[in-house]
Amino acid sequence: MTNPSPVSSPSKSRLPTREGVLRAAGKIAALLPRTPLLPLALPSGETVWCKVESLQPVGAFKIRGAWHRLTDLTADERARGIVAVSSGNHAQGVAWAAARLGIAATIVMPTDAPGVKLSATRALGADVVLYDRRAQSRDAIAAELVAQSGAILVHAFADAWVIEGQGSAGIELADQMASQAGGAPTRIVCPCGGGGLASGLALACPDAQVVLVEPEHWDDVTRSLATGTIETVAANAPPTACDALQTLATFPINFTVLRDNGVTGATVTESEIRAAQRLAFAALHLVIEPGAAVALAALIAGKVPADGRTAVILSGGNVDRAAYARMLIAED
Amino acid sequence: MTNPSPVSSPSKSRLPTREGVLRAAGKIAALLPRTPLLPLALPSGETVWCKVESLQPVGAFKIRGAWHRLTDLTADERARGIVAVSSGNHAQGVAWAAARLGIAATIVMPTDAPGVKLSATRALGADVVLYDRRAQSRDAIAAELVAQSGAILVHAFADAWVIEGQGSAGIELADQMASQAGGAPTRIVCPCGGGGLASGLALACPDAQVVLVEPEHWDDVTRSLATGTIETVAANAPPTACDALQTLATFPINFTVLRDNGVTGATVTESEIRAAQRLAFAALHLVIEPGAAVALAALIAGKVPADGRTAVILSGGNVDRAAYARMLIAED
Repeated sequence: MTNPSPVSSPSKSRLPTREGVLRAAGKIAALLPRTPLLPLALPSGETVWCKVESLQPVGAFKIRGAWHRLTDLTADERARGIVAVSSGNHAQGVAWAAARLGIAATIVMPTDAPGVKLSATRALGADVVLYDRRAQSRDAIAAELVAQSGAILVHAFADAWVIEGQGSAGIELADQMASQAGGAPTRIVCPCGGGGLASGLALACPDAQVVLVEPEHWDDVTRSLATGTIETVAANAPPTACDALQTLATFPINFTVLRDNGVTGATVTESEIRAAQRLAFAALHLVIEPGAAVALAALIAGKVPADGRTAVILSGGNVDRAAYARMLIAED
Repeated sequence: MTNPSPVSSPSKSRLPTREGVLRAAGKIAALLPRTPLLPLALPSGETVWCKVESLQPVGAFKIRGAWHRLTDLTADERARGIVAVSSGNHAQGVAWAAARLGIAATIVMPTDAPGVKLSATRALGADVVLYDRRAQSRDAIAAELVAQSGAILVHAFADAWVIEGQGSAGIELADQMASQAGGAPTRIVCPCGGGGLASGLALACPDAQVVLVEPEHWDDVTRSLATGTIETVAANAPPTACDALQTLATFPINFTVLRDNGVTGATVTESEIRAAQRLAFAALHLVIEPGAAVALAALIAGKVPADGRTAVILSGGNVDRAAYARMLIAED
């Protein structure tokens, strides 16, 4: 595995800004009701505030960045259609926004994506192109599609609009915490694949400590922030249940924001992730997918402190029924 | 089984009113964020609006009636403590409100209540008294407790305050539908045990058709509304997964409101209930307990039409892990 390169560079055209995050938040507020902010008592007795992005129409926060990106396309760009690569949540976000705006969408997805994510993306009207995660480069496939059709690539995280759009969750969160928790968040803990959400939140809430969380062995961003240079997931990384977080490396547009805003990283085990999914089930009655439970897992495990006003992003809920049932009854 | 009699009659002191519902709604608005209203596409293609009461702090709407009732107690009444009987959701609602107000709470619960409901009620600080659902009368036990201690009985549904409190969900719902769905609900479909929620909604939304839904064989209220007199569940009724809906008969205070407002009833099978729980899992990423899924089940099954602006109450999410996993992977 090598550090994948972007097939086009929308990110080079501009850098994401807090003004862009605020503009995205305005667009989202006009489109969708706010997702709830729910208090949750950890086993330690401390309370954290959960931003429930699994209740977005596509079951994940990804609808935010997709909407901000696609609504800023010109009429000419919209006519050319868009291409995205994703294991499923960005896929659904892009497909949802494209359908609403009448834009043709082609989504490159791995053959081992959860069935619910594949079928939901197709149901939203997108054209799904499958690839073998172990044998093919999704970015090469996307590049070929873009070259053939002239379509616009909507990258899952290395894109100024996508970063700003995801950051809109932080604007909502800060406002909700001010009324529900007595003040703005002092810490925001979020799941991390490529770093789109974390970099958006860092721009949105510059006064909060943003902590991103990755599954063990898929901790490239955590290591990148520790060493000061972009690191890559090892070729022999063991499998993780977090299909949404299997990004091999972050990109400079994300890394720069994360580093410059003092974001730090933490990692959790597969067992700790299941414990977080079970707490969300029992205490909040929410279905949270593995990759969306890592941030809560780090708080439960005490790997990230829960003092002050700590917020945690529950980023998605798209998980297959059988896999979820196995998690519920697993012995750990 | 016989039609249980109330052990005291707070209901006789006054009848519930729409003004009371509005007053309850004001109290709830000052205490808790609104629960979300989420659109859901049925398999038929029609959209219904889901009021997600499973996201209340105790995982069920019951917190509404309990809060309205307990906050209206006098200082003398509060000092005497309260007694409630419940399989678990009313128990948690009362225990939550009592803890917040510093009132001693004793809750009579069946030995076969879901483990999560028993442990959550105890964790809220209530004194739980267990009884055998098949051999003992919960109302007799509650009557003895009241006689011994002078505590106030907070009935799960036959109480003007409880009815008004549950109705506050309808006030929120109507306001949310006006902004999200383009107008007030024309139909509201809700689960029914004793009829507290249904009678509250009927008072809250007099211009909507309220339809209550019960599990097959536990359809005493549906039959009562059809015959015009209070009917009782048959002694040989087969078991249902809906622990929250195993009330044997409604009470006059509820029946009068339901009848006078033209409320009608429908029934669903256990298999239809599982299908509704699975749709809530897959499309909304919500954990809904069996008794809270019956209204959605009736809409999916086409037993209640989903035309116009139809709202459905997803009333709770307190279900044991193993039981939920079994439902997810069941073959039907």
